[in-house]
Amino acid sequence: MPTTDPMPSAEIVFDTLFAYQKAAALKTAIDLELFTAIDDGARTAAAIATRTKVSERGARILCDYLTVNKLLAKSDGMYQLVPESAAFLSKRSPAYLGTIANFLLRPELKNNFENLTEAVRRGGVGPHDNNIVSTENPVWVEFARSMMPMMMPAAEAIAERLASSESIKVLDIAAGHGAFGIALARRSPKAEIVALDWKPVLGLAEEHAKAAGVQDRYRTIAGDAFTVDYGSGYDVVLVTNFLHHFDAPTNTNMLKKVHAALKPGGRVAVLEFVPNPDRVSPPMPAGFSLTMLAETAGGDAFTFAELRGQLADAGFHDVEAHGLPTPQTLLIARK
Amino acid sequence: MPTTDPMPSAEIVFDTLFAYQKAAALKTAIDLELFTAIDDGARTAAAIATRTKVSERGARILCDYLTVNKLLAKSDGMYQLVPESAAFLSKRSPAYLGTIANFLLRPELKNNFENLTEAVRRGGVGPHDNNIVSTENPVWVEFARSMMPMMMPAAEAIAERLASSESIKVLDIAAGHGAFGIALARRSPKAEIVALDWKPVLGLAEEHAKAAGVQDRYRTIAGDAFTVDYGSGYDVVLVTNFLHHFDAPTNTNMLKKVHAALKPGGRVAVLEFVPNPDRVSPPMPAGFSLTMLAETAGGDAFTFAELRGQLADAGFHDVEAHGLPTPQTLLIARK
Repeated sequence: MPTTDPMPSAEIVFDTLFAYQKAAALKTAIDLELFTAIDDGARTAAAIATRTKVSERGARILCDYLTVNKLLAKSDGMYQLVPESAAFLSKRSPAYLGTIANFLLRPELKNNFENLTEAVRRGGVGPHDNNIVSTENPVWVEFARSMMPMMMPAAEAIAERLASSESIKVLDIAAGHGAFGIALARRSPKAEIVALDWKPVLGLAEEHAKAAGVQDRYRTIAGDAFTVDYGSGYDVVLVTNFLHHFDAPTNTNMLKKVHAALKPGGRVAVLEFVPNPDRVSPPMPAGFSLTMLAETAGGDAFTFAELRGQLADAGFHDVEAHGLPTPQTLLIARK
Repeated sequence: MPTTDPMPSAEIVFDTLFAYQKAAALKTAIDLELFTAIDDGARTAAAIATRTKVSERGARILCDYLTVNKLLAKSDGMYQLVPESAAFLSKRSPAYLGTIANFLLRPELKNNFENLTEAVRRGGVGPHDNNIVSTENPVWVEFARSMMPMMMPAAEAIAERLASSESIKVLDIAAGHGAFGIALARRSPKAEIVALDWKPVLGLAEEHAKAAGVQDRYRTIAGDAFTVDYGSGYDVVLVTNFLHHFDAPTNTNMLKKVHAALKPGGRVAVLEFVPNPDRVSPPMPAGFSLTMLAETAGGDAFTFAELRGQLADAGFHDVEAHGLPTPQTLLIARK
């Protein structure tokens, strides 16, 4: 920089260094059900403190901090929810996302960022490090349960696009909560869904299938998506939030298995965080890449060109990208 | 909320939950001297990886993440510093703030936020918890050293305001790096500075006094500011970045000691993070309150009215607030 430039503000540096406090404050507020307390009518620090069973000083400082960070509003000493906290952080809202915070901020995941420097050096975590995708990890049951509400809009959008009145056979790989396959089953009265995941997670998917009234058309395969037999004759295979955990060769090998399990003309539907070719926009899919660097051996937020390449290398063609009402992208390709 | 409102975006919720990653990414980039490498001419992920001795994949993902977070710019696959990272994050800059990151993100401080819920319940950390101000903690030597560059603009602004051509006697309480007293000494040729702090920290202040050529007018008192004898006959007492660690009664008691040590008509100069009366603006002083909740038993970012009250209760009058070219405020009061 030329020395004649005026000195910029260091605010962004300190704001970034202290950013960990924002996550901690939101987690604490969710744990204390503070947003729910305000939704229920507590407005002053004293009333919020009584309702959440904390000190008034603690309630006041936490609420002020959440106001600074735009998750509450304050006027004349009274706090209120903003539209985002009313919709997603009060337990009174059907779109409550509080349970997912418990997953996203669990030490098992967060602590990987204590070792980020080593992950940058190596280009990922080692297979024997704290690599969450390396084993039949019980964390995935909690993950599946907590991700369900956030994934509903994408599941409905995908189901709307793939719905059929025919007797289609659908494989839902790494089904998790089951929402993707179940949403498709609800919109396709003759569809048969086969949900694949680790055994402990499948119990949750089956529970959700029953709740949705599609249990008669719902089967499961327990095991590792890379090694278990998929069966064959599928019209549609759902590969949602899966590929970002692995590197390109691993994905291509897995997609070859998907290809083999599909009928001729069958389709694979891939849901992913897909950044633009510049890899630095939009913020959420682009930023997701760092999470995969810190938490997996070779995962990434792949660009459309990269995913199209992985699909093409596995034998797929006619790869199309479809925007969704969420920060993710749906790719559909044909066998 | 009326149900007719459109659903807001959940982006702020996820951005806040994942905010801890921003701090981790910046710390890693500072540790790897990544900004310095770019300042030295490395522009591609490959060149940056070579220079910082990391994997190319790691360099690419980290640089993209820093670009998403506005600490780098990227175009045609080439990275460059933004004005803020050039000024504060490259070791080639005289305003480099990298060392302070090592302090601000040390586990000893950061881990207090793992227990934030308990601090909110209790209204602070207990005296036997991980309370950094409770003992003669060696952390303060590192703190003093790393804070020095950031405090220079405030130190110069305060010195300019208090400078005198007379033979004034100045007490610098919790002197730390010594910058406040030393800046005043440099602008006041006959001033005598008495620096008070814990013994290990005073070595650093003396080193800086010598470097500034004011060591002949520089004395020290080792000990705890609450219990040690200050001496008397001071024209000015500097109480910088001190009061926010303690509650109002503790501060008033300490300010009474300051009052007793001043000459009649002498002045106390208090440097603090002072939020507006609403306590939620400006962002930095308002947000600082949470740091004190998490890390001290009763500290806070006090408003002007609260600080004026603490000073008045200690016998001071004519309390004035002065803006500074930093996010902090200078208060001056007279005995």
